[in-house]
Amino acid sequence: MEIGVFTFADVSPGPGGAGAPQRLPELVEEMELADEVGLDVFGIGEHHRPDFAAPAPAVLLAAGASRTSAIRLTSAVTVLGSDDPVRVLEQFSMLDALCGGRAEIMVGRGAFVETFNLFGYDLNDYDDLFAEKLDLLLALRTGRPVTWSGRHRAPLIDAVVHPAPVQHPIPVWLGVGGSPESFVRAGRLGLPLALGIVGGSPARFAPAIEVYRRVLGDSGHTPQPVAVSVHGFVAKTSQAAADIYYPADSELMNRVGRERGFPPTSRTEFGRKILAGGPYIVGSPGEVTERILLLHQALGHERTLFQLAVGSLGHNDVMRAIELLGTEVAPAVRSELGRGIGVLSAPAVELELFLGNQAVEDSAGDRSQLADLPVGETVEKEALHVLAVLWCRAPDGGQSGLGEHGVHGPRRVRVRLPYHQAPGAHPGELVVEAALLPADHLSQLIDAATPAGGL
Amino acid sequence: MEIGVFTFADVSPGPGGAGAPQRLPELVEEMELADEVGLDVFGIGEHHRPDFAAPAPAVLLAAGASRTSAIRLTSAVTVLGSDDPVRVLEQFSMLDALCGGRAEIMVGRGAFVETFNLFGYDLNDYDDLFAEKLDLLLALRTGRPVTWSGRHRAPLIDAVVHPAPVQHPIPVWLGVGGSPESFVRAGRLGLPLALGIVGGSPARFAPAIEVYRRVLGDSGHTPQPVAVSVHGFVAKTSQAAADIYYPADSELMNRVGRERGFPPTSRTEFGRKILAGGPYIVGSPGEVTERILLLHQALGHERTLFQLAVGSLGHNDVMRAIELLGTEVAPAVRSELGRGIGVLSAPAVELELFLGNQAVEDSAGDRSQLADLPVGETVEKEALHVLAVLWCRAPDGGQSGLGEHGVHGPRRVRVRLPYHQAPGAHPGELVVEAALLPADHLSQLIDAATPAGGL
Repeated sequence: MEIGVFTFADVSPGPGGAGAPQRLPELVEEMELADEVGLDVFGIGEHHRPDFAAPAPAVLLAAGASRTSAIRLTSAVTVLGSDDPVRVLEQFSMLDALCGGRAEIMVGRGAFVETFNLFGYDLNDYDDLFAEKLDLLLALRTGRPVTWSGRHRAPLIDAVVHPAPVQHPIPVWLGVGGSPESFVRAGRLGLPLALGIVGGSPARFAPAIEVYRRVLGDSGHTPQPVAVSVHGFVAKTSQAAADIYYPADSELMNRVGRERGFPPTSRTEFGRKILAGGPYIVGSPGEVTERILLLHQALGHERTLFQLAVGSLGHNDVMRAIELLGTEVAPAVRSELGRGIGVLSAPAVELELFLGNQAVEDSAGDRSQLADLPVGETVEKEALHVLAVLWCRAPDGGQSGLGEHGVHGPRRVRVRLPYHQAPGAHPGELVVEAALLPADHLSQLIDAATPAGGL
Repeated sequence: MEIGVFTFADVSPGPGGAGAPQRLPELVEEMELADEVGLDVFGIGEHHRPDFAAPAPAVLLAAGASRTSAIRLTSAVTVLGSDDPVRVLEQFSMLDALCGGRAEIMVGRGAFVETFNLFGYDLNDYDDLFAEKLDLLLALRTGRPVTWSGRHRAPLIDAVVHPAPVQHPIPVWLGVGGSPESFVRAGRLGLPLALGIVGGSPARFAPAIEVYRRVLGDSGHTPQPVAVSVHGFVAKTSQAAADIYYPADSELMNRVGRERGFPPTSRTEFGRKILAGGPYIVGSPGEVTERILLLHQALGHERTLFQLAVGSLGHNDVMRAIELLGTEVAPAVRSELGRGIGVLSAPAVELELFLGNQAVEDSAGDRSQLADLPVGETVEKEALHVLAVLWCRAPDGGQSGLGEHGVHGPRRVRVRLPYHQAPGAHPGELVVEAALLPADHLSQLIDAATPAGGL
């Protein structure tokens, strides 16, 4: 399980409120702290409104890139239908280069509709725009020349986006609200799924996630992780968490609610939302841990994201919550569910790992140079913390891993891993952590490892 | 005089070359060093080609924003004709918030034409696209609701770009190559001018700059600074500078030259280019200082930018050059020409300063709180280092300053400054350094300073 946070970079445009010049540098500090305390992901959502200050998530994430070292940086979401996939991929490829391969793009149709007027699109094309732009984005991220034409963007002839990202390909998650067709789309396209839950019972999405997993398999794709995002907050005690979070949440809910004609929220309603089974995860570290485990029991997801900094919630409260998530909640969750999101659906203990990097790290933290591993032979390890898996092939022939395009011809190593079933994992799953390192390191290594006649 | 550097984020896409994952983090280090050694500006140019890695300058500048504290961060240039002014302003407003008001946008028509195919524009509209997009950008940066329609972008009704930048307005420089109509356009629009010189004698632009200054005045605009950018490099000795710079320059010139049908360059030709009066400024710190002073004699400009990191020039050589520029060249130039770019064309010693911030600093480094300054009365100071001038009104009624929209109703203070003519400045000029601080600080201050009945 991965634990992360995201925000729309909420600001309070009124007098005395925290504007972008205060809030954006604070968010960079929040990214730094999240990285320090070992959270897995930090996300920024795109909006074009006075109350949110991040119309270009990659710009803010880049400011965090140069101050963090391990945390993954993602949009949450990129409103793709009203953007240009070329520009989006350019920006996130630059981000990926700046942070050494930690960038991700979460694309969505958008929960607000302000972008349609601003960028001259017709709301009637809401889904068609998204489908078409996503098609182009996925074609471009292969890195191969793309010849393409569509209804909503100028055609391309042999187009390649520069620079290339570090990751091949850069991860693209499909952000979904609750529309059944979105789950099917994510499955058909073989994309990891990011489900945003803003109300109601999270457990009700279990059947939709099952549909997604079935379509994924039926479409010939390898298993992909599921992220679930919720509104959430953590403080030392449950009382403190609710007392700090409620005013910010109600201000936000009422502001957005007024636009949409919803009745005002209340503390009673808030109390119902934070109960077990409700949409919010708000409480003490112990309670939040318990709620994540319950959510995982219901949905079997691999990444939990908290929309943590909302409305007028203060920077100091957010910082303390990030610290508690990283130092108390995440370790407790990981000890139950294991760490990471890479999932191999094979009841096997022997895998071919196509390693693209110089280091594998065993569970004791020792690093073995790839040069020390015999090519094509079987290595036995008690446990491996594998950096830079390009892909893994299980004995049943299925492939998995973070990257499916081993275009650089990586070095193939067979490793034997002990069967490690994380508590709460699906039967037969083997959890492998993987992260890609810069393509340069990779090429140098491959050059060094490749026999004169080529692979 | 301001001294700065810029680059197109050159990479070497071939095997063994420095790719984006190496080069972009190096560029962040170069920004950090340039900030440390007190250079005034760092610029990143937009390209969409395999040999340049910054299609979205704001993303790379944002990575530098969170690691620098004083240096101004600018695009050089933003290819505005093929972009959307809304997106451009959103990105640079975020950058401005991230760096506390140090962002600038340098817009240009683009020296390469790759963006036209990529973004579906017609090269026949080259100038029309630029003019129209610039018109929209300048309207949007006022911060007032914009209703607009044009040929090349969807219409807008009462559109406001969020977030607002720190600076009101964010500086927009007009990047020009050599076309006479561009100088006239910059003058008519009242924009600061950024002249890029890639070949020939820089002095030949003196008449065009005079035209710009005349049109500026005739159009009723206040004086604006002129930036001149050249290819340049500095090392400990002139021999070392030429030996290090020539291979990188010739590789770049021949690569671009092949596309355009130019003959290959040679060391002899390079030798001519770096002579006094030639287009390149390459040499020892003393020589480079001398060349900047000569250039200033010819053109009377206020900012010199070096396109320093080009082609295959290595990071370490670039770092040493930045250090020499900051520690040897810039101090020597400033001792001749003064520091900063704010220019007031009034032979006056008494000014009304509309201060938007809490601090003014005298030449000894002491800070006076604005609260200590009497409203509307005359203060005498030996010298003032003024932070946050919104605008200055000279006795002749002309206005100047970095921001012309004092929309927040700043506090008005009259100060008496000694007449300070910087060596080399035009007769009657008074050099005022000014930097804007976050709008939040500003509003709080103004709230505190405003009488109950309003200003």
